[in-house]
Amino acid sequence: MGTTRAVDGGTPSGRPDPSAPLGVFDSGLGGLTVVRALRATCPHEDIIYLGDTARVPYGTRSPETVIRYALGCAGVLTSRGVKAIVVACNTVSAVALEMLRVELDLPVLGVILPGARAAVAASRGKPVGILGTAGTIASGAYLRAVASLSTRTEVIAQAAPLLVPLAEEGWTEGEVPRLVARRYLEPVIARGARCVLLGCTHYPLLRGVIEEQGAALAGEPVLVVDSAAAIADETSSFLAERGQANDAEHEGRLDLLVTDVPKSFEIAAARFLGEATKGAEQIDL
Amino acid sequence: MGTTRAVDGGTPSGRPDPSAPLGVFDSGLGGLTVVRALRATCPHEDIIYLGDTARVPYGTRSPETVIRYALGCAGVLTSRGVKAIVVACNTVSAVALEMLRVELDLPVLGVILPGARAAVAASRGKPVGILGTAGTIASGAYLRAVASLSTRTEVIAQAAPLLVPLAEEGWTEGEVPRLVARRYLEPVIARGARCVLLGCTHYPLLRGVIEEQGAALAGEPVLVVDSAAAIADETSSFLAERGQANDAEHEGRLDLLVTDVPKSFEIAAARFLGEATKGAEQIDL
Repeated sequence: MGTTRAVDGGTPSGRPDPSAPLGVFDSGLGGLTVVRALRATCPHEDIIYLGDTARVPYGTRSPETVIRYALGCAGVLTSRGVKAIVVACNTVSAVALEMLRVELDLPVLGVILPGARAAVAASRGKPVGILGTAGTIASGAYLRAVASLSTRTEVIAQAAPLLVPLAEEGWTEGEVPRLVARRYLEPVIARGARCVLLGCTHYPLLRGVIEEQGAALAGEPVLVVDSAAAIADETSSFLAERGQANDAEHEGRLDLLVTDVPKSFEIAAARFLGEATKGAEQIDL
Repeated sequence: MGTTRAVDGGTPSGRPDPSAPLGVFDSGLGGLTVVRALRATCPHEDIIYLGDTARVPYGTRSPETVIRYALGCAGVLTSRGVKAIVVACNTVSAVALEMLRVELDLPVLGVILPGARAAVAASRGKPVGILGTAGTIASGAYLRAVASLSTRTEVIAQAAPLLVPLAEEGWTEGEVPRLVARRYLEPVIARGARCVLLGCTHYPLLRGVIEEQGAALAGEPVLVVDSAAAIADETSSFLAERGQANDAEHEGRLDLLVTDVPKSFEIAAARFLGEATKGAEQIDL
């Protein structure tokens, strides 16, 4: 399994059809930032996105519950014939990735290792700061991922629970997000990190204030690494290496599935996705 | 049903045992602020609290989903022989109270009407400001409740989604909660409200900054009405009027049920409850 695991993918036993869609899932709509990155990096791929909006957030649930929910989401996507699954959810990637690989008969790519790899590459020998939800940070998954890539890179992990509601509220500029970002970044920058990994799908919306406050605290630029971009790059490489990328003539389509239709769904979805959506199909889980 | 409905309770067909416990439920741990108020107001009552921590929050779910979840929670409490159910959750009180009363054969008290009544009483002819989650505000339930009590009281409803994560983070003092509270209160105070109802079980933890920022904006004291205290008072009256209050010699005990054990459960529970807990029993729903 060496090579497969190295790109954070599982091993399929059959040979899937390259024209089949990619499946992407997350606990809610935040994973649409990963879809946005995938549509930029892999524009020829069809994507089926499942947001488990009826049970969001996963970050506060026990590992047993997260595994059960993740298997449910993956089951929906496999039943729709996807060729691989991209787990956009940091919490699922942190606690349920191995179980998904054991249970599923197709490649499963998680968001943690690509993000960690991009952060280590950008760290230039200094510590790597990681912002995430309480659940992701408590899992220690980024710590283990960085350790598996570099024994010399120190990790400063900081739970940043207020960033998700700020992103969902659309408060991405101004005094409140600035102060919140500053408070979370202070211990990270004080301990020497000059590279900060956004370890949650919601955080790219707050990238501006995080860069600004990081630089203000450090007195020099702070590199912000986005795990959504990192997993999109790895997915692209993974498909190319396996000869499973879709026809370059094809214009990739996007289908959205949700387990509950949240109020102002279209506004929220467009905010994360960066493009208008034509609505979503509601499914039971 | 006049009298019963007037105190926001349902009609029981049997005569429950006064020594039976009260059932209280909420989507998570926030409803423990209601339990705290109940334990102060009705110290002789045994209480069984159910926090649906595996599916929190309800505020973003569709009404159909909220009703389904609420019936599940109420079913657990009735199976444990409670004499009445106090719905601590504003979202459930807003969208599922009638359905609970139709389905259950015991009194069901919701948090909305007592809160609205206390706010109208405190408003002194000025508009009433109401802070709540996006779901509670969108439901219009407080608006209807106030209208049913007073045709002359204007309601200024303001969704305040960041207050829940602030309370959960324990950021209840300092610059960030001050700025957030100020931002939500500005339109409410500008339109003349001098009384603000806390329409969410989490908000009592932020009462200090809400009072402070309200007064700073208004240039005079702003009365903050806590719906947890209001429902506790109404529950006490309801039990007394029905002759269903427990023996005054009895020291009420508290049992906690949760559907998932969140990380740092004891710290969070103690924060809302205002007393240490001896842990919780985890149940399936």
